[in-house]
Amino acid sequence: MSKLGVGVIGVGEMGKRHAENLARLVPKARLVGVADTNLERARSAAQELEVEHYYNNAEALVARLDVQAVVIATPAKFHPPAIQVAALAGKHIFCEKPLALTLEEADAALEAVRHAGVSLQLGFMRRYDPAYAQAKKSIAAGEIGEPIIFKSIGRDTEAPPLAYFESGWNGTLFHDNTVHDFDLARWLMGDEVIEVHTYAAARALPQLAPLGLFDSGVVNLRFTHGSIGNIESFLDARYGYDVRTEIVGTKGTIQVGSLGDTPVQVLAHSECWRHTVNHFLVRFADAYVLEMRDFVDTITSDRLPQVTGLDGRQALAVVLAAERSFRESRPVQVAAPALRAAPEHT
Amino acid sequence: MSKLGVGVIGVGEMGKRHAENLARLVPKARLVGVADTNLERARSAAQELEVEHYYNNAEALVARLDVQAVVIATPAKFHPPAIQVAALAGKHIFCEKPLALTLEEADAALEAVRHAGVSLQLGFMRRYDPAYAQAKKSIAAGEIGEPIIFKSIGRDTEAPPLAYFESGWNGTLFHDNTVHDFDLARWLMGDEVIEVHTYAAARALPQLAPLGLFDSGVVNLRFTHGSIGNIESFLDARYGYDVRTEIVGTKGTIQVGSLGDTPVQVLAHSECWRHTVNHFLVRFADAYVLEMRDFVDTITSDRLPQVTGLDGRQALAVVLAAERSFRESRPVQVAAPALRAAPEHT
Amino acid sequence: MSKLGVGVIGVGEMGKRHAENLARLVPKARLVGVADTNLERARSAAQELEVEHYYNNAEALVARLDVQAVVIATPAKFHPPAIQVAALAGKHIFCEKPLALTLEEADAALEAVRHAGVSLQLGFMRRYDPAYAQAKKSIAAGEIGEPIIFKSIGRDTEAPPLAYFESGWNGTLFHDNTVHDFDLARWLMGDEVIEVHTYAAARALPQLAPLGLFDSGVVNLRFTHGSIGNIESFLDARYGYDVRTEIVGTKGTIQVGSLGDTPVQVLAHSECWRHTVNHFLVRFADAYVLEMRDFVDTITSDRLPQVTGLDGRQALAVVLAAERSFRESRPVQVAAPALRAAPEHT
Amino acid sequence: MSKLGVGVIGVGEMGKRHAENLARLVPKARLVGVADTNLERARSAAQELEVEHYYNNAEALVARLDVQAVVIATPAKFHPPAIQVAALAGKHIFCEKPLALTLEEADAALEAVRHAGVSLQLGFMRRYDPAYAQAKKSIAAGEIGEPIIFKSIGRDTEAPPLAYFESGWNGTLFHDNTVHDFDLARWLMGDEVIEVHTYAAARALPQLAPLGLFDSGVVNLRFTHGSIGNIESFLDARYGYDVRTEIVGTKGTIQVGSLGDTPVQVLAHSECWRHTVNHFLVRFADAYVLEMRDFVDTITSDRLPQVTGLDGRQALAVVLAAERSFRESRPVQVAAPALRAAPEHT
Repeated sequence: MSKLGVGVIGVGEMGKRHAENLARLVPKARLVGVADTNLERARSAAQELEVEHYYNNAEALVARLDVQAVVIATPAKFHPPAIQVAALAGKHIFCEKPLALTLEEADAALEAVRHAGVSLQLGFMRRYDPAYAQAKKSIAAGEIGEPIIFKSIGRDTEAPPLAYFESGWNGTLFHDNTVHDFDLARWLMGDEVIEVHTYAAARALPQLAPLGLFDSGVVNLRFTHGSIGNIESFLDARYGYDVRTEIVGTKGTIQVGSLGDTPVQVLAHSECWRHTVNHFLVRFADAYVLEMRDFVDTITSDRLPQVTGLDGRQALAVVLAAERSFRESRPVQVAAPALRAAPEHT
Repeated sequence: MSKLGVGVIGVGEMGKRHAENLARLVPKARLVGVADTNLERARSAAQELEVEHYYNNAEALVARLDVQAVVIATPAKFHPPAIQVAALAGKHIFCEKPLALTLEEADAALEAVRHAGVSLQLGFMRRYDPAYAQAKKSIAAGEIGEPIIFKSIGRDTEAPPLAYFESGWNGTLFHDNTVHDFDLARWLMGDEVIEVHTYAAARALPQLAPLGLFDSGVVNLRFTHGSIGNIESFLDARYGYDVRTEIVGTKGTIQVGSLGDTPVQVLAHSECWRHTVNHFLVRFADAYVLEMRDFVDTITSDRLPQVTGLDGRQALAVVLAAERSFRESRPVQVAAPALRAAPEHT
Repeated sequence: MSKLGVGVIGVGEMGKRHAENLARLVPKARLVGVADTNLERARSAAQELEVEHYYNNAEALVARLDVQAVVIATPAKFHPPAIQVAALAGKHIFCEKPLALTLEEADAALEAVRHAGVSLQLGFMRRYDPAYAQAKKSIAAGEIGEPIIFKSIGRDTEAPPLAYFESGWNGTLFHDNTVHDFDLARWLMGDEVIEVHTYAAARALPQLAPLGLFDSGVVNLRFTHGSIGNIESFLDARYGYDVRTEIVGTKGTIQVGSLGDTPVQVLAHSECWRHTVNHFLVRFADAYVLEMRDFVDTITSDRLPQVTGLDGRQALAVVLAAERSFRESRPVQVAAPALRAAPEHT
Repeated sequence: MSKLGVGVIGVGEMGKRHAENLARLVPKARLVGVADTNLERARSAAQELEVEHYYNNAEALVARLDVQAVVIATPAKFHPPAIQVAALAGKHIFCEKPLALTLEEADAALEAVRHAGVSLQLGFMRRYDPAYAQAKKSIAAGEIGEPIIFKSIGRDTEAPPLAYFESGWNGTLFHDNTVHDFDLARWLMGDEVIEVHTYAAARALPQLAPLGLFDSGVVNLRFTHGSIGNIESFLDARYGYDVRTEIVGTKGTIQVGSLGDTPVQVLAHSECWRHTVNHFLVRFADAYVLEMRDFVDTITSDRLPQVTGLDGRQALAVVLAAERSFRESRPVQVAAPALRAAPEHT
């Protein structure tokens, strides 16, 4: 069996990890090369992962005949153009979240994918996390009855530097973090969010306020079938990386999430304490591997992806409604998918 | 030292517990008698607690010269008239939450208390819970920096029978349960809630919908100084009685809450499991004792109560705003306290 | 219904608690009086608990006609003479653990009880702890199959002052602490310990070594039916009061024990921490109440006690074998009960 | 930099994992080939890991010039001959635990290693587990004062089939499992075990008794400097794979160990439950990778291994004393290392 040739576009922290996983832990894939606007970063990643080819632009990488699929891990603003470049070249695509910063760009990218007839998978890796996957299965098995309340918390250990926000490349807290929870909400509830209400603030990082950004937010959710929910996001928790989700059902509740870095507990001075997880690459290490394997399997077996472009588009629609609710101080309805948006892989 | 003579008005589940605590675990108090519109219930409680006097009306109990203070634990609708009866008789008052079902009734009751110059303490017993008390102390000590996000969950094990709701005596879920979390929000954040947004539903108990009631709700909070938050309430969790609060600060986070009924864990069949707490009288047993002791101490030492009538009034104001937000599908501002409402004990 | 008149002999920390529980939380009992060789301590306890009678000797207390039962909570060395005084006066007896410091004294005390025809209950309060009681029930229900390994840990927060050990009144660590675990071993396994092997040390409190005492010990256990086990005891854990038991069965395992003082968790500085329990009167507060109630019920309903003198005698036999194993550096068999020791209440 | 050529001898469950890690996750190593007496198993592993060379005997593998080091993961009985074959060929060696089944074979193997001047590392992977490594560091940093009690529990999910025991290739429970805890005892306490006492039983798997084997054991430990301890092992826990260690010190205690498979908790029917870990390859996945990396680094940088042949020899000495204690029903002293055994790598 020949292996699927894959290229990685953008080898910052996240793209580097995808490249490592492809090179080492996805037996059916072969990492062919990497591209990054920072050529030195591309070169260094290529060397470390022992691949020959590296480029300072996506076009050169997707032009290679031995590249059948690409992983896009650039800043969010550049996801849609990278998708279009790859689609045009007829390559299958894995794209990190969020799909785009605006619905217009998202729809344009989906249109390009549809036109090219390639596969597109979105990087909602939590769906591959063994804990979340088990929760999904438990709900499907009826362990908690009918799910009626969705709760989620996502807290980052430490905010990135101000330049990260000033670039405008990553959107708001909702684009960058909460989008994961919006995807979980849709996936675990088996329902669509139709309206949201947001309070947000910039009290831990007041320097975000002049940029129109916020460090924390609480988003109330209303679903099509009447379920309700709330998501809290915060990007400077300090104590660790803390992602927790809870689905309340008519017969019981499922909780996903834990903070234990290592199973060590120290007991002294009338207290017991343990270290916390501090990075998403630690908490979701397995999920990223499983996600990449599934991406490759999807293509080699010509299946539809489990996490589609439409999933990316709808999570983004919730992001934008939540942001607008913040700006307009009122509940905002979530934009329904354009009719043509449905089956992007035929 | 002579003991403070106390009477209990309403000896249902909650009032009975207060009476027991007064009779056995509050050395400075003497339980003088009990009153309940159900005379048989009053008689039975009196017999069990070995007090001579029981009545089928509050008036007779407060008329006794050896009663210096009363505990009111009737259904919520009857709190204001009971407060007025007791205040008129010059008795100090402990009143269960909520203070009233409407602000008008609350303000009338507070006016009666002010006019009579008696003490009024509200039954927000969580403030006396060792865990919540420790959280308050930790926040005051700066352990988490400045508090910026308030989260709370309150889930009851099982909904009361439909008649409980049909009576109209207990208001909505927000009057009956969430009022505790609204009080915690004010107390732990050291700030006032100024606006709320609510989604609520009746999916577990659809029979509530025709009554205009709901079984679950998520309430977004905005505070005066810019903090934000969310409270979830549910009255039919099935798995147990689950109260959890989390305060996120600029330097760390405090969590209060646990489910462990008894510290027993069974490991078998690839799983480990433990029983859950299923009743507030279990979870907050200590809090109720400490609360009663403080109520008695407050009076015998002529101090101001730690949980005032104004606290009851403001928590109710948030309840009413949250309910209105549900009915009007928009964020609603919280009514500010009437100016005269301030010092009710002089 | 008239109440059972009870006197308490020895009102140090433990006896004081029993007296409080009898006065306040055991409705069927009436605390008649207390005795303590320290008259001032007796007087002060009597005053606080509002009983008239206090004495500086047990004889005076048991001579009272309105005393039908006594609780003995003196230092261990004085348990047997106190039992004999009470039995001679025809009073029913609750005696704290251990029954005695030697088997000879234990057997003499049991003989006096048998001769007097009174009831004797031993103070193994863990059997009344809701968690341990649930474990017992789970085992009986077959949840873990057949129990085959018994493990237990008992650690005190802080060692008492040296004078406590120098008095010789309390025996070794095994008499004072481990005796609880030996009782649990017999009760939860439904089997007798027949042989033990001990290593013990005095490394945290080297001042105990010259007294022939130790601060810590590990005791291997062998049971009649072939089960095995181990108990660890330590009297200076510093971090808190930590009692944990685990029973491994052929189908699963049950764990009893937890350290959480209050359900508060603080997350900051890459760590999460919580306070620990630091006293047995906190950890076992409920057990002590339930134990006293059962003692009183046993007498008023003329039942056999659930924790008998023979239980006290056999736990002591294991204590003595464990101590001897330490002194003789070899496994030691546990003395079988004298044949006549069986039914002490007829 | 050229990579270290490594061959793996024995590709059952454990050897297969080492081979995978070498092939994918140890960048400085190159997996050259595998050997297994079962040629088909060797072939299949080679194919899956995409290496060309596979053999049905160790001799052929070690004869390759491009093999500089070997990993031995045969049944325990064949560790010493495999070590001798590899040493004779001048290859550096990583050997799974236990070093051997008897001290004589162990010493002969160590002698061969010493004579050949090659490096030998023993497979005590727990030392590489992040949790155990953190515990070691905390102890070294004085967080718990002086360590005085060592406790450890090791329970396997399910016993292997009877043939595994009948072969005689793996020794007793102490050789196969407890040897890990004996190594931890030496490493974490920084001290040698000098005497042990054992009770063991075959109540869950009575079919082991006729083979002179046991399914469970409790081993009391005494250390050179006076510390004490206990280790419990069980090979059929059913509920999961459960490894926990606790070191009690004069100022505090450290606990290592947890059961959580995935951080999912289900709450329903008055209970909360979670799945357990069920395999050592899951619990110690990271440790096995870190261990292999360190093995390769040790050789390429010409350092002494962190886990030496002597460590393997001393853990085995404790194993044999524990087994003898079981057979002779008495405490048994641990054989001191032969004087010449000390520095095996010069």
